Amino acid sequence: MYSNYNQAPPRHSSYNAHPPAHGGYGAHRPPSAAYGGHQQHGPPAGADAQLWQWFSNVDSDKSGSITATELQNALVNGDWSRFDLDTVKMLMSIFDTDRSGTINFTEFAGLWKYISDWQKVFRHFDTDRSGSIEGRELAEALRSFGYHLSPQILRLIEIKYASQPVANGYGPPPGITFDRFVRACVTVKTLTEAFQRVDTDRDGWVTIGYEQFMSIVLSAP
Amino acid sequence: MYSNYNQAPPRHSSYNAHPPAHGGYGAHRPPSAAYGGHQQHGPPAGADAQLWQWFSNVDSDKSGSITATELQNALVNGDWSRFDLDTVKMLMSIFDTDRSGTINFTEFAGLWKYISDWQKVFRHFDTDRSGSIEGRELAEALRSFGYHLSPQILRLIEIKYASQPVANGYGPPPGITFDRFVRACVTVKTLTEAFQRVDTDRDGWVTIGYEQFMSIVLSAP
Repeated sequence: MYSNYNQAPPRHSSYNAHPPAHGGYGAHRPPSAAYGGHQQHGPPAGADAQLWQWFSNVDSDKSGSITATELQNALVNGDWSRFDLDTVKMLMSIFDTDRSGTINFTEFAGLWKYISDWQKVFRHFDTDRSGSIEGRELAEALRSFGYHLSPQILRLIEIKYASQPVANGYGPPPGITFDRFVRACVTVKTLTEAFQRVDTDRDGWVTIGYEQFMSIVLSAP
Repeated sequence: MYSNYNQAPPRHSSYNAHPPAHGGYGAHRPPSAAYGGHQQHGPPAGADAQLWQWFSNVDSDKSGSITATELQNALVNGDWSRFDLDTVKMLMSIFDTDRSGTINFTEFAGLWKYISDWQKVFRHFDTDRSGSIEGRELAEALRSFGYHLSPQILRLIEIKYASQPVANGYGPPPGITFDRFVRACVTVKTLTEAFQRVDTDRDGWVTIGYEQFMSIVLSAP
């Protein structure tokens, strides 16, 4: 028997919140007032004025919806680096609920809250205020979310999501910028949950075919 | 019994080459003439003059070695989009053989040939000359490399590596730019080979623990 994941409550956790969830936020807002194929060029009735301003700033061509390129141009990390395309695509896959390929104002409300919540998480675990998440900070964050990962797996995550190649013995580790930290956490969650769905007897082992294996991996962000 | 990968020779392949390999190119070049900790500011004896020129152009701060940021600033796709950081890190992990975190001139020779070889592959499979690889072109490329992937897996690859979110029923698929095509192919190769190493009886099924599962996935580009 072998078990090392997510079966015990988080220990030594100083962070009582869970990683940001994305279920249903914005779902209770009224649909936009656009009709007849015309695009919406003003805020819907009752819209938050500040949120509408942010939306309009991101929607640089004023089309009424945000493309991946517009979102990527708008989102920057603390060091002013742009978000990776893969993070932008991950965010859009979560919040583009009507699968139009773009983000409308209603969808944007959920996206904006999600990013804001993750920023709080990032700042909480960036204990040395370096603007990036290094090895021990990463371990603490993932542990507080309930993932009991070995030092080897934590090291692989640190290397994969670092904002620069990790050199052996040359200087400090480069750390993980905000957008890659979010993607790392969502990827660990997605992969762990997919594994657990196959591991029906919860012993930490699965028997899995090539097709399902590839499907799980390629479905993660 | 279940078997669907890489056991039959490629069928209907019009491309007789394999995907570019990266073993040993540059290994026979003499080491650089730098000594005593001084950085090298001229080409090593016998260096290809054109290759040195390219190297110097990428090495924008003239430090004698190329960082990930310099490489990312130098590499563009056919549509002038920059290479993803993850593709740049993948290239550096392959060619930074001394694990210094940067690419020296000797390592650059291998990197340059690898990219040139992949460009030929990309142009070969971009049969409609669109500058990106769409679904049927992707299927043909991976089949010619010997991967027998189901339509579902091919679709997941197409969605994951597309340069824009794939919208259901809205317009043509966005396609895969050069750098993401290379990363997709290397990822499929890495995951398939890792699966096959566990699948010792080659029946297409493995029994695998959470730790090894995560290790395989996080070690892929």
